[in-house]
Amino acid sequence: MTDTDSAIAARLSGTVRIVGAGLLGASIGHALSAKGVDVVLSDTSPAQLRLAIDYGAGRAAREDDRPALIVVAVPPDVTADVIEAELRRFPDAVVTDVASVKLEPLNALRSRGVDLTRYIGSHPLAGRERGGAISARADIFIGRPWVVCRDGETRAADLALVEDLALDVGAMPLEMTPEEHDRSVALTSHVPQVVASLLAARFVDAKEGSLGLAGQGVRDTTRIAASDPALWVQILGANAAPVVAVLDALAADLTRVSDALRAPDAPGARRTVADAIRLGNEGVERLPGKHGQNRRFEQLVVMVDDTAGQLGRLFGELGELGVNVEDLRLEHSPGAQFGLAEISVEPAALRGAIDGLEERGWRIASMTND
Amino acid sequence: MTDTDSAIAARLSGTVRIVGAGLLGASIGHALSAKGVDVVLSDTSPAQLRLAIDYGAGRAAREDDRPALIVVAVPPDVTADVIEAELRRFPDAVVTDVASVKLEPLNALRSRGVDLTRYIGSHPLAGRERGGAISARADIFIGRPWVVCRDGETRAADLALVEDLALDVGAMPLEMTPEEHDRSVALTSHVPQVVASLLAARFVDAKEGSLGLAGQGVRDTTRIAASDPALWVQILGANAAPVVAVLDALAADLTRVSDALRAPDAPGARRTVADAIRLGNEGVERLPGKHGQNRRFEQLVVMVDDTAGQLGRLFGELGELGVNVEDLRLEHSPGAQFGLAEISVEPAALRGAIDGLEERGWRIASMTND
Repeated sequence: MTDTDSAIAARLSGTVRIVGAGLLGASIGHALSAKGVDVVLSDTSPAQLRLAIDYGAGRAAREDDRPALIVVAVPPDVTADVIEAELRRFPDAVVTDVASVKLEPLNALRSRGVDLTRYIGSHPLAGRERGGAISARADIFIGRPWVVCRDGETRAADLALVEDLALDVGAMPLEMTPEEHDRSVALTSHVPQVVASLLAARFVDAKEGSLGLAGQGVRDTTRIAASDPALWVQILGANAAPVVAVLDALAADLTRVSDALRAPDAPGARRTVADAIRLGNEGVERLPGKHGQNRRFEQLVVMVDDTAGQLGRLFGELGELGVNVEDLRLEHSPGAQFGLAEISVEPAALRGAIDGLEERGWRIASMTND
Repeated sequence: MTDTDSAIAARLSGTVRIVGAGLLGASIGHALSAKGVDVVLSDTSPAQLRLAIDYGAGRAAREDDRPALIVVAVPPDVTADVIEAELRRFPDAVVTDVASVKLEPLNALRSRGVDLTRYIGSHPLAGRERGGAISARADIFIGRPWVVCRDGETRAADLALVEDLALDVGAMPLEMTPEEHDRSVALTSHVPQVVASLLAARFVDAKEGSLGLAGQGVRDTTRIAASDPALWVQILGANAAPVVAVLDALAADLTRVSDALRAPDAPGARRTVADAIRLGNEGVERLPGKHGQNRRFEQLVVMVDDTAGQLGRLFGELGELGVNVEDLRLEHSPGAQFGLAEISVEPAALRGAIDGLEERGWRIASMTND
């Protein structure tokens, strides 16, 4: 599958070289190859390289390759080394990387005196729970932010090339400084990972029966605890300073709430607990929602038999009613042979959805507008 | 709507009295009324009582009411007082309550020397983000655990009455001691609430742009931070000891990880970080999944246009293919006019689902088996 609307293909007749054919590298390769870009793949693992090429993410390198753009997609701990090597080997190429931390590789390169004129760090906010070329897909970047870190030395044409890469794979380029980027992912990704992991780790020694009362709330809170330890040790290590700043503040907050619960009659104790929950309300409101903004939907919960075709009937009938499903969460009750479908709709569509579904015999379990 | 398969109606010809016509009380009233049980409602707020009665959750109290079962569904801080008053006022009735903490009201009653032979504490694991009679629904208990706390004094017939109540509203009765219950909800509900709230509270002072990189992971981790402060101050205060024990352990864990990141070359530092993530993997695996057990499904992600009817077509076609959707998560890409539907299916159904959907023109964005 090829088409000709590639910004990169239009900008240059050359080749894109991707170093590291894991999940991100091979996924970029798939997306660019599908647009007709000449993609060269390189990986220290011959097996992974073979797999990525076999799946169509690109071709093997040749001696006479003259890439115009190089994408370094290797593990965080070798990112700086590979960027340096690629800058030296291809003196005309623009080099970017996709590591999830931006300041550490930059500082490492600076401390070695590497000329960074042609280097532009970047970070696509995309990923999957599983890694490797075998999990790669052309579509994982679509609609996701792709941070691009320009600096004073960056040439406009080079910046445009990296932004075109992001656009070509369907992502949305977003300029930030390395410092802004690292603080942002510490707060919105790295610290939530640590918190979810440590909370879930508390379940390891819990008695069997005591986890039986777990509901959707704790399942959501700990879902990302199912992440790759080796990768996260590297990510957290590479972004230690901003992560530590938030973790220390959080540990102090936890201790403050714990102290207040231990001595509820101490001055301000009840207020400390109330403030924690109230500020949590405020904070979660600030997270960007769907469609890039905080839109408010109303929810209705419909009971669905746990058999094939029931959801099809439900969504088919919502379609007939002209109701667009903005968001959806499906919950199976433990031990019960049916599920609850929580459906978010535009406020104006709620009444019609409920009336229409009830007319058609659906049981509406509940509705909220939170 | 009435039917005659009520276990309570069969066991007694009497009345069920519900004290507190908020979300839980009125929901129980709806469920029992629908089964033909004579439900009497009481509430200190005439407006809330009126609302619950108007919506069909039960009738107003009369002087000559002789309830066989009384359900106390009032805020935690007045639960013990109301249980005591109801036991005195109706000397032949069995009294239960639905408070989300079980030891504190029991200890309060014991310290007052109240005869607790006819009291059996219970706790339905059901709720909604919004409270009040107006949010009440008959179906919120269906398939959920309903903890019942018997003790040595409990008479078998009284216990059966409370368990029949749970069964009548569709819940699954589960016997636990008050101590087991309180430790369990501290771990699986109360501490996750504090953690999610404090994490989300960190976003309050974040720069606008820095939250733009937030993805599904942090949204899941902080979803329950949107909870009612007033209610949670009471719940946390009433279950302080078990909550404090877990919070203190968590704060120590956070500090340990933070110290390890601050001094990565200290002995054992990298291992501390790796263990945190690894134990998180283990812990999250222990949470009960759907259908009351840890079943493993495979996931596929399908791209869906953001227009009414598209999900209907997707699920209709999955139904035609004989594929039962075990779980589903819908994600809208920020700024993009389409969504990604992550669908969980039985492993044996994965191949057929993918092939069948691709034949019908759907774009499979990715698949995992995690």
